[in-house]
Amino acid sequence: MTLEGLFSNIRKKRSFLCIGLDTDLNKIPGHLLNREDPVFEFNKNIVDATNPYAIAYKPNLAFYESLGKSGWESFEKTVNYIKSVYPEIFLIADAKRGDIGNTSKMYAKAFFENLNCDAVTVAPYMGSDSVTPFLSYDQKWVILLALTSNDGAYDFQFIKNKETGNLLFENVISISRQWADENNMMYVAGATKADMLSKIRKIIPNHFLLVPGVGVQGGSLEEVAKYGMNRKCGLIVNVSRSIIYADNTLKYAEAAKVEAKKIQQEMQNLLFSYNLL
Amino acid sequence: MTLEGLFSNIRKKRSFLCIGLDTDLNKIPGHLLNREDPVFEFNKNIVDATNPYAIAYKPNLAFYESLGKSGWESFEKTVNYIKSVYPEIFLIADAKRGDIGNTSKMYAKAFFENLNCDAVTVAPYMGSDSVTPFLSYDQKWVILLALTSNDGAYDFQFIKNKETGNLLFENVISISRQWADENNMMYVAGATKADMLSKIRKIIPNHFLLVPGVGVQGGSLEEVAKYGMNRKCGLIVNVSRSIIYADNTLKYAEAAKVEAKKIQQEMQNLLFSYNLL
Repeated sequence: MTLEGLFSNIRKKRSFLCIGLDTDLNKIPGHLLNREDPVFEFNKNIVDATNPYAIAYKPNLAFYESLGKSGWESFEKTVNYIKSVYPEIFLIADAKRGDIGNTSKMYAKAFFENLNCDAVTVAPYMGSDSVTPFLSYDQKWVILLALTSNDGAYDFQFIKNKETGNLLFENVISISRQWADENNMMYVAGATKADMLSKIRKIIPNHFLLVPGVGVQGGSLEEVAKYGMNRKCGLIVNVSRSIIYADNTLKYAEAAKVEAKKIQQEMQNLLFSYNLL
Repeated sequence: MTLEGLFSNIRKKRSFLCIGLDTDLNKIPGHLLNREDPVFEFNKNIVDATNPYAIAYKPNLAFYESLGKSGWESFEKTVNYIKSVYPEIFLIADAKRGDIGNTSKMYAKAFFENLNCDAVTVAPYMGSDSVTPFLSYDQKWVILLALTSNDGAYDFQFIKNKETGNLLFENVISISRQWADENNMMYVAGATKADMLSKIRKIIPNHFLLVPGVGVQGGSLEEVAKYGMNRKCGLIVNVSRSIIYADNTLKYAEAAKVEAKKIQQEMQNLLFSYNLL
């Protein structure tokens, strides 16, 4: 998907919502556990109910890997289902991978060739040759971790560079933006540190940001828009648990739809007030 | 496995060799491709031939994930085979994972509960709460990326901290060693930057280091021992391609054995000269 394609979907759906498919057998409704593939069935029903309000979905690989090969199968089925039934959806494999060149190449193959994902989250620590193998695919995206939403972000991401005076997450952005432009690179920037988004926007005014941390983690959507929105929206805001686990009865998908719609309405208002609709 | 158990195996086998199972369908002998599970068969034969000379094996997850669910199955079979037939082997899942707390917990479950791996490689960028969920398992290990063997390591790992004057990889070590001690934490430190190992040894004299980069990547075993060895060896040196792809005829396992033995002999000499045997 191109940047323009993504922006066009945002305007069409009046939403910049990504729904995180952190599907956990301990949290999905009990009646699903007898089904052949409870994880896939849950995902399918969540996606069918919420897709009018979301432009992206983000399965988190950890939740699938924790189930072994059957989890990997549920992940594959989920990706194939979404991309065949809802081809306009931007599909993010939240994998946080990153390894030496020949290895990153294998990960890129897994997510971009074998599976039709649009983007993969990648960790920056190992530097350029761990990231660039993901960048050789047309219309596929790297979403690089810059500023994460968790408390541990303060351990290293705020270390100040002696030479440049910049914080590590700023260094990560300013160095990595030399590897690719806003047409195939995005950055993770947590909503729990929304005021930092203005620092980030000074370095990369035009890139999209994937923003986790709204919802259970406590970030504010309004603050995120205030500091992070640009002329092509430039934001994909992820919400996981507060949507997909809104209810755990037979009506879970309906409840997820209600939650997704609530957020979409808020997003629509923000898109209007920033003159993007 | 305990630190003492690991050191005892090193003395028994007179080796601190880890063999990386970076098993790639494009590189394994062609005759295996008709078999039911070529990846597992290759791994099994490599392990059966080389295990007298190795104390650890390290399947790299990327190579398995790139084959989808059948790859994940080959990975599971490989781990189960090694841990049931050679229980003394230290088994490292080279996954370079790391995510927010609830997600890292799922990864820890995948590798330590569902599979009987002894250690997982973890990326430090997201800080303490992305690492600590892996540390709650008795006799299981986190191997944290500190100084990697690739060129991209220079992009961020050598950034100097304005306050402490330390390099980022030194910061990663000095901060993270507060989360766990040498009994369940190790660090990745690349052989291609062997002189840096003495800097690392000043911060963590007693921890084990997992050292990639000997072999195809060009690092020297002698230099690694000179700068990195401690009184309990403290080194697990990984070699992948130059052993497992020593030959691609019917005699590949025999050739791998010859290569592994060569390295073990060199290691034995080093263990003697540092008075560890």
